[in-house]
Amino acid sequence: MLKKYIWINGKIEPADKPVVLINDIGFLRGYGIFDFMRTYNGKIFRYPEHYKRFVNSAKLLDLKVAVKEKDLEQIIYKLIKKNGLQDASVRLLMTGGPAINGILFNPATPTFAILIEDIYDLPAKLFKTGAKLMTFDYQRLIPEAKNLNYIWAVKLQEEKKKRGAIEILYTSNGEILECSTSNFFLVKKGKLITTKAGILHGITRQAVIELTKKLKLEVIERPIKVSELKTTDEVFITATNKNILPIVKIDSLKIGSGVPGPITKTLLTKFEELIKRY
Amino acid sequence: MLKKYIWINGKIEPADKPVVLINDIGFLRGYGIFDFMRTYNGKIFRYPEHYKRFVNSAKLLDLKVAVKEKDLEQIIYKLIKKNGLQDASVRLLMTGGPAINGILFNPATPTFAILIEDIYDLPAKLFKTGAKLMTFDYQRLIPEAKNLNYIWAVKLQEEKKKRGAIEILYTSNGEILECSTSNFFLVKKGKLITTKAGILHGITRQAVIELTKKLKLEVIERPIKVSELKTTDEVFITATNKNILPIVKIDSLKIGSGVPGPITKTLLTKFEELIKRY
Repeated sequence: MLKKYIWINGKIEPADKPVVLINDIGFLRGYGIFDFMRTYNGKIFRYPEHYKRFVNSAKLLDLKVAVKEKDLEQIIYKLIKKNGLQDASVRLLMTGGPAINGILFNPATPTFAILIEDIYDLPAKLFKTGAKLMTFDYQRLIPEAKNLNYIWAVKLQEEKKKRGAIEILYTSNGEILECSTSNFFLVKKGKLITTKAGILHGITRQAVIELTKKLKLEVIERPIKVSELKTTDEVFITATNKNILPIVKIDSLKIGSGVPGPITKTLLTKFEELIKRY
Repeated sequence: MLKKYIWINGKIEPADKPVVLINDIGFLRGYGIFDFMRTYNGKIFRYPEHYKRFVNSAKLLDLKVAVKEKDLEQIIYKLIKKNGLQDASVRLLMTGGPAINGILFNPATPTFAILIEDIYDLPAKLFKTGAKLMTFDYQRLIPEAKNLNYIWAVKLQEEKKKRGAIEILYTSNGEILECSTSNFFLVKKGKLITTKAGILHGITRQAVIELTKKLKLEVIERPIKVSELKTTDEVFITATNKNILPIVKIDSLKIGSGVPGPITKTLLTKFEELIKRY
């Protein structure tokens, strides 16, 4: 749930007050980027990495983040406090600002906002039983940029619910890419494999890769074929609001033995230790 | 240029006043649709067709247009008048409204707006000399819906200008689809050919097809291969704000003899007669 106050272009405003012009190019043309992070123990998880990714998303859309890393961090903490919270989800959002003739924008006048939201924790039970994915043939455009185009993700929410899936797994040309807001990992013969290209590189994904290496487990970043799922031992997905979520079913296919596997469970335990003392 | 007054969810508001909530799903997720029409002699060109297409776009995104055809028409004319104009461009815009938890929306509370804009007439000279297209490998998602996702179209505006092109021609898997906001026609051995599927079916495109049939010319709607361009006699594109625009160059390829062809010129003359007495 969106909390009471937002920050937009330098000002704190009530979240229920209209703040966007009808001809903002983010609204007229879906032209913009975002990032999504959360705090643990009052501290933003891997803030420098999120800032860096946001700047990169901006660059890929010819936008510029004019607020410096440290300044933005202070604004975020101030806004969380203003909302009366210690821990929260934080959404950064930037668009090209007011459109010129419906299609052009001036990079010098972007719309830049910060939204504070509740932390959406998944039911604890799901981490024990494992969850289900539904596949959908689609590749996000400019996938390395966390851009605002989530038409399919939004449109498929009903279908996802109907099928009892927790996430939508995008596949394209017989390959596994990423979920709508999560990254994909599989475990085969003790090795971890995760998609390398054509995806958004998640911050949790990177944290898991680092964790895995500390555990002396091998991680391979490479293309993954959909056909590999049949012989996979374990699957999990990673995301800011999901941490490491075991996956035991993809469409009608049972993954491994149908329960969270040992490597997934070990990583989940280690990740939980990591965030407990973050 | 956006004119002084807009209409949003039943009210006329100044266009320079923020009217959109930060968590409108059109803004957060680019989830919405639009339509774009114009008047000739104070009358909206093919309004029933535009309304029907808008309703269809809405349906494809699980949205619903609650304002009836005749009522909306009256609102539009009232808004044009309020802006002190007789002729104008009209943009209808609908999104899923305020987002729930960042990704869900309630179809019962959409954001629905009408924007009045100047008519962007292209320089008359271009219709005599013909214009240039640049190609780009991309297919719009849910192409039959005039959805808000124009990230590539916006991002490519600079490149388009640099290359001296008037429009971006989307191609995919060796086939020609459509331009960023126009439809594509070619003429070969006296016959017209235009893409049938995977595109937005333009209102001007349909008007041209009807005009062509009246002239006893054959029109074939079918997939078009990029490789066919080499042996094409004429090319033109159609759009609300372009009418029928002759194309004489695509990337570095000269089309036909490099000047607007006879069939294109005949159609353009007939179309101009049609709108003069509309």
